[in-house]
Amino acid sequence: MKAFDIAEGIRVLVYGEPMDTGAVVCRLGNEIEADGFGHVELLGPDASRITMELKKKDIVYGLGANLGGINKRGRKYESYCTDEPVHSEEKKRLYAAHNFLMISGNGAKGFFIDFPGLIGYDIGCSDKDKLIIDVAGEDFAVYEIDGKNEDEVVQRFHSIIGRSYVPPKWGLGYFQSRWGYETSKDVRRVKKSFDDLGIPLEGIYLDLDYMEDFKDFSVSDERFPDMEELVREFKEDGVYIIPIIDAGVKIEKGYDIYEEGILNDHFVKTEAGKPYVAAVWPGKVHLPDFLRPETRKWWGEKYKVLTDLGIEGYWNDMNEPAIFYDEEELEKAVDAAIASKGANLGVLKYFELKDLFKDMGNRERYYRTFYHEVDGKVVVNEKVHNLYGQNMTVAAGEGLRSILGKRHVLISRASSTGMHRHSGIWTGDNSSWWSHLELNIRMMPSINMAGFYYVGADTGGFGNSTNWELLTRWLQFSAFTPLYRNHSAIGNDFQEPYIFGDEVTGWNREIIKARYALIPYLYSEMMKSVMNGTMMFRPLSFMFRDDASKDTEDQLLLGKELMLTPVTKPNASGRTVYLPEDMAEVTFRDGEVSLERTASGLRRLEYGFDCLKFYLRKDSILPYSSPSMNVRSLDIGTLHAIAYVDKEAEYVLYDDDGESYGYETGESWSTTIKVRRDGLDFSAEAISDNPKIEKIVVDILGTDGDRIRKTITI
Amino acid sequence: MKAFDIAEGIRVLVYGEPMDTGAVVCRLGNEIEADGFGHVELLGPDASRITMELKKKDIVYGLGANLGGINKRGRKYESYCTDEPVHSEEKKRLYAAHNFLMISGNGAKGFFIDFPGLIGYDIGCSDKDKLIIDVAGEDFAVYEIDGKNEDEVVQRFHSIIGRSYVPPKWGLGYFQSRWGYETSKDVRRVKKSFDDLGIPLEGIYLDLDYMEDFKDFSVSDERFPDMEELVREFKEDGVYIIPIIDAGVKIEKGYDIYEEGILNDHFVKTEAGKPYVAAVWPGKVHLPDFLRPETRKWWGEKYKVLTDLGIEGYWNDMNEPAIFYDEEELEKAVDAAIASKGANLGVLKYFELKDLFKDMGNRERYYRTFYHEVDGKVVVNEKVHNLYGQNMTVAAGEGLRSILGKRHVLISRASSTGMHRHSGIWTGDNSSWWSHLELNIRMMPSINMAGFYYVGADTGGFGNSTNWELLTRWLQFSAFTPLYRNHSAIGNDFQEPYIFGDEVTGWNREIIKARYALIPYLYSEMMKSVMNGTMMFRPLSFMFRDDASKDTEDQLLLGKELMLTPVTKPNASGRTVYLPEDMAEVTFRDGEVSLERTASGLRRLEYGFDCLKFYLRKDSILPYSSPSMNVRSLDIGTLHAIAYVDKEAEYVLYDDDGESYGYETGESWSTTIKVRRDGLDFSAEAISDNPKIEKIVVDILGTDGDRIRKTITI
Repeated sequence: MKAFDIAEGIRVLVYGEPMDTGAVVCRLGNEIEADGFGHVELLGPDASRITMELKKKDIVYGLGANLGGINKRGRKYESYCTDEPVHSEEKKRLYAAHNFLMISGNGAKGFFIDFPGLIGYDIGCSDKDKLIIDVAGEDFAVYEIDGKNEDEVVQRFHSIIGRSYVPPKWGLGYFQSRWGYETSKDVRRVKKSFDDLGIPLEGIYLDLDYMEDFKDFSVSDERFPDMEELVREFKEDGVYIIPIIDAGVKIEKGYDIYEEGILNDHFVKTEAGKPYVAAVWPGKVHLPDFLRPETRKWWGEKYKVLTDLGIEGYWNDMNEPAIFYDEEELEKAVDAAIASKGANLGVLKYFELKDLFKDMGNRERYYRTFYHEVDGKVVVNEKVHNLYGQNMTVAAGEGLRSILGKRHVLISRASSTGMHRHSGIWTGDNSSWWSHLELNIRMMPSINMAGFYYVGADTGGFGNSTNWELLTRWLQFSAFTPLYRNHSAIGNDFQEPYIFGDEVTGWNREIIKARYALIPYLYSEMMKSVMNGTMMFRPLSFMFRDDASKDTEDQLLLGKELMLTPVTKPNASGRTVYLPEDMAEVTFRDGEVSLERTASGLRRLEYGFDCLKFYLRKDSILPYSSPSMNVRSLDIGTLHAIAYVDKEAEYVLYDDDGESYGYETGESWSTTIKVRRDGLDFSAEAISDNPKIEKIVVDILGTDGDRIRKTITI
Repeated sequence: MKAFDIAEGIRVLVYGEPMDTGAVVCRLGNEIEADGFGHVELLGPDASRITMELKKKDIVYGLGANLGGINKRGRKYESYCTDEPVHSEEKKRLYAAHNFLMISGNGAKGFFIDFPGLIGYDIGCSDKDKLIIDVAGEDFAVYEIDGKNEDEVVQRFHSIIGRSYVPPKWGLGYFQSRWGYETSKDVRRVKKSFDDLGIPLEGIYLDLDYMEDFKDFSVSDERFPDMEELVREFKEDGVYIIPIIDAGVKIEKGYDIYEEGILNDHFVKTEAGKPYVAAVWPGKVHLPDFLRPETRKWWGEKYKVLTDLGIEGYWNDMNEPAIFYDEEELEKAVDAAIASKGANLGVLKYFELKDLFKDMGNRERYYRTFYHEVDGKVVVNEKVHNLYGQNMTVAAGEGLRSILGKRHVLISRASSTGMHRHSGIWTGDNSSWWSHLELNIRMMPSINMAGFYYVGADTGGFGNSTNWELLTRWLQFSAFTPLYRNHSAIGNDFQEPYIFGDEVTGWNREIIKARYALIPYLYSEMMKSVMNGTMMFRPLSFMFRDDASKDTEDQLLLGKELMLTPVTKPNASGRTVYLPEDMAEVTFRDGEVSLERTASGLRRLEYGFDCLKFYLRKDSILPYSSPSMNVRSLDIGTLHAIAYVDKEAEYVLYDDDGESYGYETGESWSTTIKVRRDGLDFSAEAISDNPKIEKIVVDILGTDGDRIRKTITI
């Protein structure tokens, strides 16, 4: 092991000869003498173990988009990007490999394991007082980060992994999606429903349905003959079309992507050097070797087929990579079935046979049978498994940036830290379960830690049928997440916000409109978090040290201003909320915003379906706009704000053109709103270079007295 | 439809010509003119629909051991006994068919649908304001029950279904179980660990492991050669052995049960009249036709093989009945596999093939292919499906009562109302999920409503591996359920209470000991509930009408005295509790009982792992004993009690010999403890005919002042 200085509070311990995974952007400093946070054992050629002691009260944060709590203790986890269709509680791995952890107790210590293969975490589970990390290799780096608190540790971590991807501002609108909008007629019908009912709509995601035989960069002539027109017409109304792209390339003579891939050697290979054959949606496919720069370049340029149709947003799917089966496994199962013919199967033999079929998807063996080319060397996928989705998405991100010359929407299912510079993520194929709404909440801070900000879950739930209540409650929570997408799977009940009758439609419309009113703030918070490398969503325990805050995993802090308290249970007219300090309860309902002082402690919050409710912290200001039908028509000529003020409050509203990369070089506008107590009255002032803002109307609730309105002319 | 009077507040609406399912024990009164609660439509020969309006604030209770909340609104359910191995949120059916529902809003109305086939419930899900019940038939009875409140409705319902099964008092001890105690050596080793570590143990459940080739009423010579000795030796120490019995009878020449079954025509038949062949654990089996009285008698007598070994407790499993596959389905799948050989499977064809194997268990088709004899008529299983497990267990219960002449322990996986007179249930093959601990809590009141009192879940979780924290938290909750059993499945980590290191072992020991101290109270409450047909576990909303009580589904009232507030989340040092009124926080720790006044409202409860905590209601008395190592050695010579008193409190402790059926004819003892405020002091008195009680030591906490001790000599 060698240790190197990186920056203040950051060092790296290098074991063996780790590869460049693309996760970090920092350079090694001087070699130093250092022990790591944990005890490291090399157990074999492909096995290293890091062990750390946990104190009783230590909280362990991190692991990004995985299961478990905000506090990750008490479970086992694995980082190994996997298409896991059922996110039930016992699962250890999902789509992402986010290897940042932080132990918070007597101070905060973060560490990031830079390794592209399987890592197992046993966090106080087998042994309640130990954190055990099993790295399936001996070449890896551990970045260790000290900080004066959790926020500083995260910020320092983000300083070494580089600035995160930023979508265009329209990426913060409301998106409708479904696997099963089968034709352009379906898509037009959905948009018409939104229009007719006055529900804001920013775009429609297209799932596999739009493709010709599941072929990447193809559009079905039969089902979407008018794609270019559709995209253009919709865009005139401020509505974007966002098609899916899968990792696997259909094996089909004459299909250009396939032919080019074969010709230029773009596909991963078997041990014998032949293109590897996997089976996914198109049937048999080859998998592009996205770890090769040439292949990434080729792939990235392919998006031009779709950008030429006017499309500016994409989602990359199946890029763990998911594999339904390979030829060998299918043959094995079929042969076992043939051998069983006529035999009096014992029950154990029966289960063996059944499991051959049942467990055929994503078998670990598959990932030991195909190979990448990495810096001229042949490397089996298993060793670099977690870089596949990352590099597919790097290819897309770099390609799109180069083609479009302005920001695009891009989310990916598989991810690892490093990809955060190129794309957002969605949390994968969740279910229409109340517990997945809760999981969505818990995931947000961990995902921010891992470097991702443009994130959201499939609102309403992807698998299984949702119902009116779960959808509405989920819409209320997702109204705060940068990616706001309602998505569901074919075969389940439809779940558009207007599908459950007039009353529910009205509620959902109000919620989505309230979201649009919050976009100036949400965009500002997302951008400031990205620019500063800080968290957008924080656990209560980052700020408050009492046991009740530590145990609260169904509330979140958003920015420095808000505390979110979504209802996550059925049949509830409200919920218990925990206020670590006095706050103001905020209600957005029917275009009106109301404010109510609430004393700290455990409180009952009445929270119906027809509004958005949350809390505004003391000495905080929340700017918002009038609702609009899409981001393009958001009007902040008159910017509104509410303030809850004891002494004084300040908010700095970030804004920019929302589409160019100018923000990277500081092209942005800043509006500083200040409210100060002035005896029983308050003074409000603002400084702004934002040309869109003409005046600011601030409603101020003091910690005593009535609500007061101040108008500031810019 | 004809309507009949049954008793005060109870009437029955009879549609068509319903069969006698054994659910009710009442007789029809006079025919009356009546409309039902709901609108009934006959939609076809096998389809009736009952529709009722739901008001916004109505709560719907019931459906026994099914998923969802205490409030059943917002979901769909089915009553169709099914071996469902994964109880995830979207599932509609589990092992039980408990067709009692109650709408509570402006008053309370209960109804019970007496029908032995499939019933679907859509409770405010498709339409949020409607309860829609689909009965797969046109011959059924709806018992409608009015009452002045929820308790009276339940009590009236229980008056028509008859008194519930009661286990011997030792049934309330702590039981260790595991599928995978493979030999009598394993079982002895487990008992020795409990003995060595001083953890109370009442018995050990044996799963399939003890049988010879999965054959009912056999004992493996190889693995359990000393069963009789084992049972005798253990019983000397007060430890019972409780073996499993499965529904299916292995097809094997020379196996007596099989031969007798064939000879006397005991098995269900195919359409062609041949014994139907299903496959379960033993491989191919026949299923006894438990709907025939002759078959029940034969089966009930078979238990003598095991009672002769001294065994007094049993669990009936796989009696939905579970079917892994039948010959036709397996052949179909195998043939599809053969046909696919060498073909380039499209992905849809692949999924078809895969699903043939994956979904082979418990297909609905199976239950349309075998037939029962009911009153001389041939009836397909589908039509009477929910009576199968019930009648297997009636056979066992009647047989065991007749053989043993005293009470026995009996629980069944499948159940329907009617079986409650003969057996308890466990909640089936749950998972080691925190959400299943919560589900366990929510199920308890609904299961009581359905008539079952001797009930508990697989503590720690059956499927998947548990961990120290989930096990300890679950032990804390299950300490209050009449059936207290830790059970897990082969292949998962072991989960005996002593498996997680010394510290955790110490915690679990204290929890189980506290359970034993509570047995006098728990037995008294269970027995009074059974005798009076009242609930043992009540939702808060039965007693308190505020929104917060209505929304609270993770706390329960136990008897009139206690409120249970288990911790159901990982990494929590306590939880938020809602006290609808002032109560006293009770802690059982290290043999000490402490009491603390707690004002009504939302409160933070610190709840560690090393104790039992709950609340004692105002003007209530909780009797308890010193802990013991088993029920036999429970000593109530000195009975203890704690009281939380404002004005006066009274508790009537029921007791009996704990093993005979004398309780049925009133052979029992009663001890009435009274505490009355007397200025700043309190007076305590007791009347008792219980010969085991010599004195009662009552610790009284007033709503003001210090704790005061009074000793009452009987």
